[in-house]
Amino acid sequence: MTTCWVPGADGSPYGVQTLPYGAFRRGGGGERRLGVRIADFVLDLRGAEDADLILAGGALCEPTLNAFLALGRAQWTTVRRRIVELLTEPEHRAAVEPLLVPLSEVDLVLPFAVGDYVDFYSSEQHASNVGQIFRPGQPLLTPNWRHLPIGYHGRAGTVVVSGTPIVRPSGQRRSTDGPVFGPSRRLDIEAEVGFVVGVPTALGDPVPTDRFADHVFGVTLVNDWSARDIQAWEYQPLGPFLGKSFATSVGPWVVPLEALDHAWVPAPAQDPPVLPYLAESSRRGLDLSIVVEWNGTRVSEPPFAGMYWTPAQQLAHLTVNGASLRTGDLYASGTVSGARRDQVGSFLELTWGGTEPVKLDDGSERTFLEDGDTVVITATAPGPAGTTIGFGEVTGTVVSTLRNR
Amino acid sequence: MTTCWVPGADGSPYGVQTLPYGAFRRGGGGERRLGVRIADFVLDLRGAEDADLILAGGALCEPTLNAFLALGRAQWTTVRRRIVELLTEPEHRAAVEPLLVPLSEVDLVLPFAVGDYVDFYSSEQHASNVGQIFRPGQPLLTPNWRHLPIGYHGRAGTVVVSGTPIVRPSGQRRSTDGPVFGPSRRLDIEAEVGFVVGVPTALGDPVPTDRFADHVFGVTLVNDWSARDIQAWEYQPLGPFLGKSFATSVGPWVVPLEALDHAWVPAPAQDPPVLPYLAESSRRGLDLSIVVEWNGTRVSEPPFAGMYWTPAQQLAHLTVNGASLRTGDLYASGTVSGARRDQVGSFLELTWGGTEPVKLDDGSERTFLEDGDTVVITATAPGPAGTTIGFGEVTGTVVSTLRNR
Repeated sequence: MTTCWVPGADGSPYGVQTLPYGAFRRGGGGERRLGVRIADFVLDLRGAEDADLILAGGALCEPTLNAFLALGRAQWTTVRRRIVELLTEPEHRAAVEPLLVPLSEVDLVLPFAVGDYVDFYSSEQHASNVGQIFRPGQPLLTPNWRHLPIGYHGRAGTVVVSGTPIVRPSGQRRSTDGPVFGPSRRLDIEAEVGFVVGVPTALGDPVPTDRFADHVFGVTLVNDWSARDIQAWEYQPLGPFLGKSFATSVGPWVVPLEALDHAWVPAPAQDPPVLPYLAESSRRGLDLSIVVEWNGTRVSEPPFAGMYWTPAQQLAHLTVNGASLRTGDLYASGTVSGARRDQVGSFLELTWGGTEPVKLDDGSERTFLEDGDTVVITATAPGPAGTTIGFGEVTGTVVSTLRNR
Repeated sequence: MTTCWVPGADGSPYGVQTLPYGAFRRGGGGERRLGVRIADFVLDLRGAEDADLILAGGALCEPTLNAFLALGRAQWTTVRRRIVELLTEPEHRAAVEPLLVPLSEVDLVLPFAVGDYVDFYSSEQHASNVGQIFRPGQPLLTPNWRHLPIGYHGRAGTVVVSGTPIVRPSGQRRSTDGPVFGPSRRLDIEAEVGFVVGVPTALGDPVPTDRFADHVFGVTLVNDWSARDIQAWEYQPLGPFLGKSFATSVGPWVVPLEALDHAWVPAPAQDPPVLPYLAESSRRGLDLSIVVEWNGTRVSEPPFAGMYWTPAQQLAHLTVNGASLRTGDLYASGTVSGARRDQVGSFLELTWGGTEPVKLDDGSERTFLEDGDTVVITATAPGPAGTTIGFGEVTGTVVSTLRNR
């Protein structure tokens, strides 16, 4: 692996093999700037483009990644190569070093303006578990599940960056005397992986599975906070609404697809065979190892490689009806759950609908989230030559309702 | 009523009692400009602000309404009053007349950048009809229907302006041998009324029912095109997705709430009583008379006044979990259907699931939309002093799949 002159970069999950993009403010509320993470620093991309160290037509001087995302794969690759040069070739050190800002001195902000947010439901284990818990006695999966990647639109305006406090939502929930209103009692997480669209499409233009990498720029972590009691009462017949729309947290870093060349693994075989528009010449999933920590206790390690529907299939399905893509569209995998109880991506599953509490390291027990609880989701993937790709973290702390409702 | 000096304005549904906002280009692709409709002209608002005839801090010089929408009610009222002055006081005629562009010389474009798009399901007749058709033998309404205004998020990126051709979507539909893929065979409309959010809110801040007019700027017509066969196969358990996401047409005009002061009527009583956050000191619906024309044949006249859930209740519900609003958010009423067959807002209902074809004036019969079919939805409401408020039209023509899928 190339040697990087930035202290701590070589051997780190944030060495030059990763180089995720984000946006930051200097502490205390400076202007929004784009950056790329290297070790425990942010390289100020606006500074680098202003100094003509990187040429991206001004896209790196914008407050969000969107203009850069719209440039397309050739430009993404050129800029990434240039950043690697700047961070590895000693002759650039004097010019670049002043543009490195310690992570401890910045606030990371939402890296891109979200177009539409779509959430899929593509883990067979998760869908089966939810089916058992929410619809006992019925088949584990709905009849359509193995024929198409089920998904729905979420609320783009409430996608927030990691670290944003999560206000416990109020809403209606069932009781034996009819619905009652109040703060959710079954506040949950969904550990997911999100895909960020760069290159848009025109209305009427589907994206075939083999064009995935022409449109998707990169990957970020997602926590799709879910109020299970609100969701259970509202979701028939038009799907989840207020049970999800109060907040969706995304990671501060978007890992470009180029960093994941070594992370692709064969995806599970599909039976029955899919319709032609969902077929892939080579079925590939991403080998992300996800870790979920609840108040510091590692409670689950969901394996992303086992997802039944791949990101390329999700994109092909999302657009097959002619729906257009915009730069900044985000689509998430759906909750990532493996076969074992310590591999599930939601607390609904971890505690089996709240019936089997988990014990945290401090001795306390939990079913759903309590006020003050913090959830941290992290992930890594294999990089080239034995390196590790880090995705950073998506975290949030639950706070009680702020205002009198 | 004040006399307007613009030819054809007095007595027109587009007199000074209406003054809907839109955006236009001069024929052949000029720049996007904001305008307000008066009779069969567009008043060029950018030209008016550039000439200091209206002062709105530059908001009327923008390419979309969003900056103006964000200004809030006091400014909306000030600008509207000023436009009335300009169009009624003879001393302004010389300055303003050159800013009137005949409608026939402009292309109307999407008036605002859509934030999130939410679609409700608030007509009791529509929900009952769909229940009977889609879920025969089960109760007409799901148990939650009378307790909350059911809604879901649609795709904001495929909201298009009236007149945009509607490409027939392809997708999966059920067959006796499992799902098959192809162009939808049950392409339908949903005649709806949309509400455009002006003033945003912070995350965690609900909007009580009595604050509706502080946030909602105005009203536009919506046709939520729907592929019933795609929808029927995909919608369990997470709701409609590709059956709706290919296109939603909105009218080119946003009628400000100020124009609708005389259009409020008592809304239907609700039984059982609603939870306190959905209660209204005075339940009000809008008395819009909608007309649906299919290839020139008037097939339905849905009455908006009878909607079970009001726009204020919809907004209160949408935000009660703390979900924030952005300027440009659009929420639609759901299909507007009255009690009679000639009052329904979808062809699914009009032809009772395709089993009872309708005859058009040219002698042809229809169940669902055929390629080349055109649907025009218009509406009017009572204005002051016996005038009529016109909403313009939302229209679309179905075209066959353009590309080989």
